[in-house]
Amino acid sequence: MPRYSEDDIIARIFAPIAGAAALGLKDDAALLAPQSAPLVLTTDMVVAGVHFFADDAPALIAKKALRVNLSDLAAKGAEPIGFLLALALPADWTNDWLEAFAAGLAEDARVYGAPLIGGDTGATPGPLTISITALGRALRFVPRSGAKPGDDIYVSGPIGDAALGLAVRRDPALAEHLSEETRAYLIGRYLLPQPRLDLTGWLAANASAAMDISDGLAGDLAKLCRASGVSAIVDLPSVPLSGAAREAIAIDPALFETAITGGDDYEILIACGRGAAPPAPACRIGEIVAGSAPPSFLDAQEKPVFFKKLSFQHF
Amino acid sequence: MPRYSEDDIIARIFAPIAGAAALGLKDDAALLAPQSAPLVLTTDMVVAGVHFFADDAPALIAKKALRVNLSDLAAKGAEPIGFLLALALPADWTNDWLEAFAAGLAEDARVYGAPLIGGDTGATPGPLTISITALGRALRFVPRSGAKPGDDIYVSGPIGDAALGLAVRRDPALAEHLSEETRAYLIGRYLLPQPRLDLTGWLAANASAAMDISDGLAGDLAKLCRASGVSAIVDLPSVPLSGAAREAIAIDPALFETAITGGDDYEILIACGRGAAPPAPACRIGEIVAGSAPPSFLDAQEKPVFFKKLSFQHF
Repeated sequence: MPRYSEDDIIARIFAPIAGAAALGLKDDAALLAPQSAPLVLTTDMVVAGVHFFADDAPALIAKKALRVNLSDLAAKGAEPIGFLLALALPADWTNDWLEAFAAGLAEDARVYGAPLIGGDTGATPGPLTISITALGRALRFVPRSGAKPGDDIYVSGPIGDAALGLAVRRDPALAEHLSEETRAYLIGRYLLPQPRLDLTGWLAANASAAMDISDGLAGDLAKLCRASGVSAIVDLPSVPLSGAAREAIAIDPALFETAITGGDDYEILIACGRGAAPPAPACRIGEIVAGSAPPSFLDAQEKPVFFKKLSFQHF
Repeated sequence: MPRYSEDDIIARIFAPIAGAAALGLKDDAALLAPQSAPLVLTTDMVVAGVHFFADDAPALIAKKALRVNLSDLAAKGAEPIGFLLALALPADWTNDWLEAFAAGLAEDARVYGAPLIGGDTGATPGPLTISITALGRALRFVPRSGAKPGDDIYVSGPIGDAALGLAVRRDPALAEHLSEETRAYLIGRYLLPQPRLDLTGWLAANASAAMDISDGLAGDLAKLCRASGVSAIVDLPSVPLSGAAREAIAIDPALFETAITGGDDYEILIACGRGAAPPAPACRIGEIVAGSAPPSFLDAQEKPVFFKKLSFQHF
């Protein structure tokens, strides 16, 4: 069977998975009803060879591309309305690949209540490139900038799994030392983040500040502190690590730094007033303090730990 | 001077040109006030080597990337609210390039009242890739699907200039035969489309159907007819051509087909009831008729003309 034409891709692959606002993808734009709540908008572009491996399963690539955007909505206290997809296909795309990609997208769109409402498909001489823009309605917008001295700092779940999953994929020697189950868990956390939309309501009601951890806990906390004009003290032994992460770190203690400064967690970093504890598995990891110094990270002896690099940067 | 870091790019290049909803690009998402009008959303991704030449002036690349999105808003009867930008930079980007790119974007954002409200910047091992999502408020949403038999068909301005501009850039032999002024005009129309936001109000009040002509008049009219369940008769001698396009076509008559089926016009194709003429330089080029046949294109002798390919397709 020949490859789909551009019109076929729209009509056969994406129109069947689109929501009402997409107008069947038969028009030039999406049409959304008037919105009585404030709107939250976010965009993230992912590129093969940078954000994922070109030969990752297409359904997982699709889900991750969508989830990193939904994760931003969750952290801001916003419920998804829908998303737009811009897709640049590399020379070697196939119908099968595209069908699996769309199936993955459709599944997540349904699970998270975030329908496809518009898009653009084209060709690239370079790697597969996916740009998603997600829209949400804010229950209450939770800014980065609202953290206050005395606030508790929480993370919504285990930190470092994804960065360790990436390390496992890149380092066969490390992979060899881990159980099959640990490898699969860590790689799975890298491939498929869980957007914490289950926390949206709690965050909107309770958080003074929040952001999703996409570039590493250490660096993202530094950003939250800068935006809020505060500093922070983190008790490193309190940072929740999965059993798998502990297993990897036991083999190579330097991987602790990878876990704390690596990216792709997509857990939520939360500052909230005393007594307003987010539901488990969220964990308190420290507190916001006055000042403009970068956050301090203390070990079990309460001595400061310094990291070579706080977070992932593209440049 | 070293290249900007990712944080520098946000803080020094894009934050200064961002609108209020961008929250200074210091948060993870944009925040927009509740919207009492229906929202129109569109996304277009452009890739170096596909949609533009990598060595085009960065300000022009930026403007074209934005304008192709604003053109969709205009055609749908929507006024711009703002846009999100996702940018994947190739290995050889420079600070100067990025500054010129942002300056071009800022200029158009101001001219068209479409502020930058959010974005994402990353690296790509491939070509420069720019994805823009634009939002507008619909005065009245003008669909593709509203054309009715008896409607007049208009185009908002000269057709084919951009496709001929691209031909001139690709074919030195053609370029040689044209005056300097003609070359500059055609190439200029390719590099810098004019989003017809001046027509938004008229379209919202008067058009039964509209779309911007991005993939070629012939193919885009076929799409509008399919969406509306109608057919059309176009009087080819009535299709407005610029003096420059006429000069090129006089040299090589085959370029007439390029003009009618080539892309990148970003003029608006309009169907409207008799007596509802859009303002000059819009030109009546034919009429909507009942039926499901593809549109007929008639020459000066009223004989049908057949084109090899109706419009640009990526695949």
